[in-house]
Amino acid sequence: MNQETEISQIGEFGLIDRITEKLPKFNDSTVVGVGDDSAVLHYAADVDELLTTDMLLEGVHFDLTYMPLKHLGYKSAVVNFSDIYSMNGTPRQITVGLGVSKRFTVEHIEALYAGIRMACENYGVDIVGGDTTSSRSGLVISITCLGDCPKGEAVMRNGAKDTDLICVSGDLGSAYMGLQLLEREKIASAGRKDFTPDFSGKEYLVERQLKPEARRDVVKALRDAGIKPTSMMDVSDGLSSELLHICKASNVGCRVYEDRIPIDYQTAIMAEELGMNLVTAAMNGGEDYELVFTVPLHCHEKIQNVPGVKIIGHITKSELGCAMITRDGAEITIKAQGFNHMAAE
Amino acid sequence: MNQETEISQIGEFGLIDRITEKLPKFNDSTVVGVGDDSAVLHYAADVDELLTTDMLLEGVHFDLTYMPLKHLGYKSAVVNFSDIYSMNGTPRQITVGLGVSKRFTVEHIEALYAGIRMACENYGVDIVGGDTTSSRSGLVISITCLGDCPKGEAVMRNGAKDTDLICVSGDLGSAYMGLQLLEREKIASAGRKDFTPDFSGKEYLVERQLKPEARRDVVKALRDAGIKPTSMMDVSDGLSSELLHICKASNVGCRVYEDRIPIDYQTAIMAEELGMNLVTAAMNGGEDYELVFTVPLHCHEKIQNVPGVKIIGHITKSELGCAMITRDGAEITIKAQGFNHMAAE
Repeated sequence: MNQETEISQIGEFGLIDRITEKLPKFNDSTVVGVGDDSAVLHYAADVDELLTTDMLLEGVHFDLTYMPLKHLGYKSAVVNFSDIYSMNGTPRQITVGLGVSKRFTVEHIEALYAGIRMACENYGVDIVGGDTTSSRSGLVISITCLGDCPKGEAVMRNGAKDTDLICVSGDLGSAYMGLQLLEREKIASAGRKDFTPDFSGKEYLVERQLKPEARRDVVKALRDAGIKPTSMMDVSDGLSSELLHICKASNVGCRVYEDRIPIDYQTAIMAEELGMNLVTAAMNGGEDYELVFTVPLHCHEKIQNVPGVKIIGHITKSELGCAMITRDGAEITIKAQGFNHMAAE
Repeated sequence: MNQETEISQIGEFGLIDRITEKLPKFNDSTVVGVGDDSAVLHYAADVDELLTTDMLLEGVHFDLTYMPLKHLGYKSAVVNFSDIYSMNGTPRQITVGLGVSKRFTVEHIEALYAGIRMACENYGVDIVGGDTTSSRSGLVISITCLGDCPKGEAVMRNGAKDTDLICVSGDLGSAYMGLQLLEREKIASAGRKDFTPDFSGKEYLVERQLKPEARRDVVKALRDAGIKPTSMMDVSDGLSSELLHICKASNVGCRVYEDRIPIDYQTAIMAEELGMNLVTAAMNGGEDYELVFTVPLHCHEKIQNVPGVKIIGHITKSELGCAMITRDGAEITIKAQGFNHMAAE
């Protein structure tokens, strides 16, 4: 960028004016958006509302060395939308909390906001409020999303029943492999000015990490097919972790089949290059933002006609625990090894 | 504390289980609280919903040297409730985003959460969700609050009309003076182990800074008196700043009278001790969380019967600008000198 503007030149209110200029409005439930002590909303009586929040911290959840600010904004919004879709809902409004340290300029924050706005436009979500403040250290992004679903139609974690089929959308492990690739190129580039990262043939992995999408299409396809999942989550921490959440909340066990886990060939190639176990990456990688859900056994035929969805196993009685059946028929107990930012590093 | 538990010992999910154990439920609009990808809410058709968010960062908004974690939790929640009350609403639900660095133990976070829970109990608000993650540097708190008001009854910033009376609740400048006092004692204590801070006779100032309350009582009193303000805000950045917001949004001017600004005697004594201008502190101090609002002139008599509320001036035509009339009759233009965390430090 040619011209950089220090945030102190225009102040907090000046910055807020810039980033909230001409915000579009997509939803009838948005009565008054940005600009007062709070937003004013009005939801119809025949819907339930869904409320979720996510905090993203520099150095923990993202690395600006390879994460462009616009992508970061996009991803920050989309991960919240994903939490609403995974409840069988539609995201409607977000508020955006930003903590910004001095090394960020007005143009940086505009780039971040451009990504948030693009995500909101793509998914028809209104930005209705926020809080922008200075930070002593790095960038802090906290987004809260409000959405809705027809009354009583929210899909929780706790509804899975014995014999239900376990399904996932898309493929797993690719976002994690994208992260490994970006980290590898970051290390390779250290101290070299002429460095060009090599992503050829692996663009999909990079995109999965830098620009994930929420599976609105899958939620719609299930609704169109007349299928209401008995439980559903989005895969943010890793499939193992999400399956354990569903089984714990539903008081059931599960069996998933190694050869049914959907994996993209780029993920497989990358795992081989890095000498990593492919299935471990797919089961524990996280950040795929695919949907994992359960449907009654009688939906077997219907679910096979939903594009991009794969049956990977089934729910069992609680006593049987949670296990994966390997290609050679062995049972391996599923343990959560997902992204646990709080665990010892 | 005798026993400190490292967060890594129990992990993210263990910590979440601890802090969200046995959460009470105060509101019918809360259908499902903590524990899924999102909370599920159901609001009646005859209400509007209000949504607000606030981010608090260590080293910018609070100093743990003198801010106990329980107080910090309490204040973090209350400042959000205040934003809902200032819209003429009632807070109902919050989500809590926490970023926690390694120097914090499980007991620390429990203390912080105890404060949040106490605030929620006092104000009848449900904790329905959150996100807890590690932080590379210090404590990050992001709270989002959802509330409601009867449909169409939200009070915005933009409704002030020429000749309206300008009112404030409580007193101003005391929270700011509490901050000055705490900072003074912090400096005095540096390097001294046997130091006991001296707050005698100034307990009110310390309490205003460390444990502010939202003016739910004033909102109720106005409703009971049949008064609907034409505009309202809470005093978070300072009266000057809030008045300018109201006047800009409403396209009006204002006159406030120096001798009408409500100031507690402890605030006055402290200002004298520190050699600070008292009115400047009261006009620009911020964090009072009092309400500033405008009412039609014909409410003059009614408003005088509302306890704890004082008329400090009136709204004028836009051309006349925003000014304070000093005790000797001079007009001083009001400028925002409030807490602007983004401005050059």
